[in-house]
Amino acid sequence: MTLFGAIEAGGTKFVCAVGYATGEIKERISIPTTTPEETMPEVISFFKKYPVEAIGIGSFGPIDVNKESPTYGNITTTPKLPWKHYPLLQAVQKEFNVPIGFNTDVNIAAMGEAILGAAKGVDSCLYITIGTGIGAGAYINGELLQGMSHPEMGHTLVRRHPEDSYKGRCPYHADCLEGLAAGPAIEERWGDKAFNLSENEKVWEIEGYYIAQALMQYILIISPKKIILGGGVMNQEHVLKHVYKYLAELLNGYISLPEVTTNMHEYIVRPGLGDNAGITGGLLLAEKVYKENNR
Amino acid sequence: MTLFGAIEAGGTKFVCAVGYATGEIKERISIPTTTPEETMPEVISFFKKYPVEAIGIGSFGPIDVNKESPTYGNITTTPKLPWKHYPLLQAVQKEFNVPIGFNTDVNIAAMGEAILGAAKGVDSCLYITIGTGIGAGAYINGELLQGMSHPEMGHTLVRRHPEDSYKGRCPYHADCLEGLAAGPAIEERWGDKAFNLSENEKVWEIEGYYIAQALMQYILIISPKKIILGGGVMNQEHVLKHVYKYLAELLNGYISLPEVTTNMHEYIVRPGLGDNAGITGGLLLAEKVYKENNR
Repeated sequence: MTLFGAIEAGGTKFVCAVGYATGEIKERISIPTTTPEETMPEVISFFKKYPVEAIGIGSFGPIDVNKESPTYGNITTTPKLPWKHYPLLQAVQKEFNVPIGFNTDVNIAAMGEAILGAAKGVDSCLYITIGTGIGAGAYINGELLQGMSHPEMGHTLVRRHPEDSYKGRCPYHADCLEGLAAGPAIEERWGDKAFNLSENEKVWEIEGYYIAQALMQYILIISPKKIILGGGVMNQEHVLKHVYKYLAELLNGYISLPEVTTNMHEYIVRPGLGDNAGITGGLLLAEKVYKENNR
Repeated sequence: MTLFGAIEAGGTKFVCAVGYATGEIKERISIPTTTPEETMPEVISFFKKYPVEAIGIGSFGPIDVNKESPTYGNITTTPKLPWKHYPLLQAVQKEFNVPIGFNTDVNIAAMGEAILGAAKGVDSCLYITIGTGIGAGAYINGELLQGMSHPEMGHTLVRRHPEDSYKGRCPYHADCLEGLAAGPAIEERWGDKAFNLSENEKVWEIEGYYIAQALMQYILIISPKKIILGGGVMNQEHVLKHVYKYLAELLNGYISLPEVTTNMHEYIVRPGLGDNAGITGGLLLAEKVYKENNR
């Protein structure tokens, strides 16, 4: 079997792994995301130990995923200042003479779940992470959805819950989905972290209301065959019942397919790969670029 | 050159044409959409006159576009009762022993604009029609976007304009985009048809506000490389300035690409094929299924 490398570059840690396109992970490490000067040498030295044939990178964003662009492979306008305009792909490329795939962290998670996780056997899925931020990636007929740039689904506009007067904390849109429903918004609104609020049903009803609205938009616009909800906030799985209830109310029978009428609990699900969705997707992205280079 | 047939099946008329994949139309007719018993024999007899090698159908919806489904090719839950559950594809198939493509009317218009219209040379576009209803299709890397079913982008949720107290007229969602911004909503809200309201700037400011919100969602979720605005309401082209203004305000610099910062008027445009987007797309869809069958 061909050995691949995967990097899941997150805002708090870089997870690096070597393994196979079966999803089997041979070794992995986790490196704190501090500055490129500190973090990257550790990333590089990890992979130097293994004869990887290709590497798949999934990065926090926004990133430049346009292969025609002079800044392809860069992290772009992130608020994490040491990483702003950092040429992440280039930094890896100059150390390893192998094909390297580059995409967003949520996109590679979508790829992992589509091929080996909860959407295995289905040719399209949407993976959404709800945690410190909110992001989503779509894998459709063997390709990651991408156009002008990668999607930014976390900033979808939602209507306010009538009992929610919290102003929202997105620096661009205030009360977009991320501004109202990501972990830091829950904490600021309720004065405690999400995992300490498990017993407060109102927290999860409001959260479910916003998530359901976003899912309605995604369903109307992309019509994915499976929706996977990951991320730290979603570990409060009891939010799902509110999501199902509000989504059914919002769609109101307009889409008559069983996925959203009778079988919503099989259509909108938790990740099949747990916390390994991203890193598994990284290995699969590595396999993809490897195959493209060895045709 | 290979001769193809195209059917653009709309709610008021069926446009049928024969022509070529260059977009050249040899002959076309328009048949009123009354009942299948009246309309379809005229459609069939038109094509019987020509040795077409394949046919592309774009239909009003909702339709069943799932090739695995026993009802593939049917119009499904339309409020146009004579056409409810009508097997449109089958009705054509049994008369013509050629490959036949089947998709939504807006999807084939997206295909026409992508290949020969305003998005020629760009590998992804979104085509939106704003008229009696609102619908959209996306053409991405040579394929029409489709998953569980075709998209239903016209029913996207929007936030209310603060000066708009109109209740909305979507039978499912009341004040979704279509319920607030399609032609009949404009007419009911203002007591006159859109084309008689050209001089009333408030009409178009409110209209632009809703369209801009929908475009924001489409951009965040799909990130198309070009957006094309067609349909009868959009003939009031002065609405575009409000769309541009509100979209810039809503995005608020979050996406820093030139398409949505400095060059919005080149990114969001009117159809390049005018009223021929759909029928041209039908010819192109015919060519696609013809090639797939003659590999």
